Amino acid sequence: MSFSKFTEEDLAALRAICGEARVTPREEIGDDFCHDELGGAFHRPDARVKVLSTDEISAVMRHAHARNLPVTVRGSGTGLVGGAVPVEGGILLDTSGMTHILELDEQNMTLTLEPGVLLMDVAKYVEPRGFFYPPDPGEKTATIGGNISTNAGGMRAVKYGVTRDYVRALEVVFADGTVATLGGKVAKNSSGYALKDLVVGSEGTLAVVAKATLRLLPLPKFKVSLLVPFPDLEKAVSAVPSVIRASSVPTAVEFMERDVILAAEKYQGRKFPERSADAYLLLTFDGASQTEIDLAMEAAAETCLAAGAADVFISDTDERNESIWSARGAFLEAIKASTTEMDECDVVVPRSRVAEFILFARSLQKRHGVRILSFGHAGDGNLHIYVLRDALDEKTWEAALRGTFDDLYARARELGGQVSGEHGVGFAKKSWFSESVSPETLAIMRGVKAAFDPKGILNPGKVV
Amino acid sequence: MSFSKFTEEDLAALRAICGEARVTPREEIGDDFCHDELGGAFHRPDARVKVLSTDEISAVMRHAHARNLPVTVRGSGTGLVGGAVPVEGGILLDTSGMTHILELDEQNMTLTLEPGVLLMDVAKYVEPRGFFYPPDPGEKTATIGGNISTNAGGMRAVKYGVTRDYVRALEVVFADGTVATLGGKVAKNSSGYALKDLVVGSEGTLAVVAKATLRLLPLPKFKVSLLVPFPDLEKAVSAVPSVIRASSVPTAVEFMERDVILAAEKYQGRKFPERSADAYLLLTFDGASQTEIDLAMEAAAETCLAAGAADVFISDTDERNESIWSARGAFLEAIKASTTEMDECDVVVPRSRVAEFILFARSLQKRHGVRILSFGHAGDGNLHIYVLRDALDEKTWEAALRGTFDDLYARARELGGQVSGEHGVGFAKKSWFSESVSPETLAIMRGVKAAFDPKGILNPGKVV
Repeated sequence: MSFSKFTEEDLAALRAICGEARVTPREEIGDDFCHDELGGAFHRPDARVKVLSTDEISAVMRHAHARNLPVTVRGSGTGLVGGAVPVEGGILLDTSGMTHILELDEQNMTLTLEPGVLLMDVAKYVEPRGFFYPPDPGEKTATIGGNISTNAGGMRAVKYGVTRDYVRALEVVFADGTVATLGGKVAKNSSGYALKDLVVGSEGTLAVVAKATLRLLPLPKFKVSLLVPFPDLEKAVSAVPSVIRASSVPTAVEFMERDVILAAEKYQGRKFPERSADAYLLLTFDGASQTEIDLAMEAAAETCLAAGAADVFISDTDERNESIWSARGAFLEAIKASTTEMDECDVVVPRSRVAEFILFARSLQKRHGVRILSFGHAGDGNLHIYVLRDALDEKTWEAALRGTFDDLYARARELGGQVSGEHGVGFAKKSWFSESVSPETLAIMRGVKAAFDPKGILNPGKVV
Repeated sequence: MSFSKFTEEDLAALRAICGEARVTPREEIGDDFCHDELGGAFHRPDARVKVLSTDEISAVMRHAHARNLPVTVRGSGTGLVGGAVPVEGGILLDTSGMTHILELDEQNMTLTLEPGVLLMDVAKYVEPRGFFYPPDPGEKTATIGGNISTNAGGMRAVKYGVTRDYVRALEVVFADGTVATLGGKVAKNSSGYALKDLVVGSEGTLAVVAKATLRLLPLPKFKVSLLVPFPDLEKAVSAVPSVIRASSVPTAVEFMERDVILAAEKYQGRKFPERSADAYLLLTFDGASQTEIDLAMEAAAETCLAAGAADVFISDTDERNESIWSARGAFLEAIKASTTEMDECDVVVPRSRVAEFILFARSLQKRHGVRILSFGHAGDGNLHIYVLRDALDEKTWEAALRGTFDDLYARARELGGQVSGEHGVGFAKKSWFSESVSPETLAIMRGVKAAFDPKGILNPGKVV
């Protein structure tokens, strides 16, 4: 695709739509808007436009479409694969100012909001009102728009599924500026192709999300976590399929190794409540009655002990829960702080292959001479594996990183896994993604992209 | 689209792929294969090909693609909108012989099977092994392939969601005969566009489903139904949103009116256990402990009584459950048997608008001079509304039916509903569907169709 050069006239046109104050020209755009959380891609947009309404998004898209200018949508910029980085320049469509919660529909149990609302603000809004929005990605300052774009999963996917499962309807703006509603406040839908489900997870390449209607559940009244120390990581992770089979499905099953916990302790400056073991499973159960949780916990505890767990600690006080989960929440930042530079692999493999995959990932430390740490969602097979640069020189680091990633993705493929569980393909994982699907499937995905965006102006250089 | 004329050479080519016995030429194809359960469309294929493997499907598609012949996939033929009727003739690709259950993966809790397996056989296979496949459409003799094609919902969608939510992976054959796997045995996926979710619900127009991997849950150990009589239908249905709010989410919330129950009694030749009231709600709760169910039932019962219910009957014996649910399962056939001809409307509206919509549907009996019966899924807003011909002459019936449908779909649109909750658009609902979406959205759907099937040979004349 070749795009038009961004001109002074374009700047003026955008200012006519959004006003002077919300349109920043290239030379005034700070570095913060040129990369995301992992910084693998760095590109400055020609203009940053802070939109406040569907109408503004539509007008910006009409202009961009007529002029053949690339448009990259950005929320909080907490992505990890360069999805919101404007690699072809053009317009950075910033939706972080669209922060209104528009409607809580108690009868239909839905929440309608703008895409810039932060994930943590959704919980703050619905939980005191007795409702529950299950998707729970680690990054609470991400926007809902970003979560929808990557089909973010999070900790509770084992029991509750992922973001796509909770998006009932989307108001979208297509590449030519047309506004459409996909889906509705309905629990079933068999009316034509599932465009709503297709836009979810499309990383801003098919349409701009201007409004979302999310499905809520009643807030579970009871919740307990179990912290289960194991002598080693393999034993811990190998226990997971039987734990899930043995009981009611747990809300979350996270695994953590001692090195990551130590990094979090250092980063947070506070002790983790338990540190005797090499590896831990962290299980959560929620439900409408204490009895059902007790039954599930007992079954899970027995299964863990039979699988070699050293002990089982029940965490049913807010204080203890907070200290465990805040450590868990700090893992990414803690690992980042422990090294000079890093990159991550967000593969998902069948639950039964998690142990095998993690041991394989560890073995790559030696093969490629890099430090590798991992944590993640043992219950749903989605692993976050971090390759750390530490003191390596540029050339050694790049070769080691490439080699490690090639090996990780190849192994994930062999095990029936996928390139990304929840962070997306974006810019950084494109080559591995295209290796992971057949040429015919990739051709159809490109055809789908062309059906939505024939000029290829929406987030060019991403996904396909 | 214009297709080639089916020739003797085509017949020979298909016989070379599948053998003589499994390829039936037009003149030997019985009427049963020319229509579905509602018979609105009647078209004879040029050949019926009973395929037994992915390779055979692929070879048939390669031939059809090279020769530009239409291909319509058919399972049990239990559809209600003509989706599996070959309206353009050509090849009827019959997958009803692909009935193997290939793998129960206990660790990943998935079931891999061929598309011709009947829904009832899935339950029979997994439940004794302690697993649960939640989607529960009324028609148990439908194939899983058919359920996937329409994204069937069924009774338990309130709590558990619909077929799409339980399809982890599909082996599909594209229009040109290429075989691909979409998705995997993974609980999360953010790797490119959600083609798997798009193929689900596409009614055989995008790809042929050759194999499916379904997600299973642990079988809930406890289950109770409540039959709740109300003085009238409006009171019954109006109570539903608060019932769902008040308790843990029920597994199913069905509504039924006296006329439909009487029809079922007559059809089945057995009495319904309770018949004092004009309208009923039938609620089901399941869970891992009796306590949680008791809590949910109490809350639901209180809410129903406060909303005007005359009583609440607990049905916790197998016998009583069977008699209620077998009546519920017989509704469609009973209504069909009570008249000369009928057609149905499968709209879905927001849960809060169900009562309003049903009263509106009733009012159309007078306006259009037809008998109208309804039942359905009050909990998820998916209504099945049957318009009955009785003794009307052809012309009067056609005008009355068209008028009733126009009014029903227009009202559903006003209430934020969708044309089909679970039966699909198929052939019969195309005009109402295209009125219900914007021209731009329809154009994108057509582009998606072209990306999968540029020659338009897969189930032509359907959906878009």
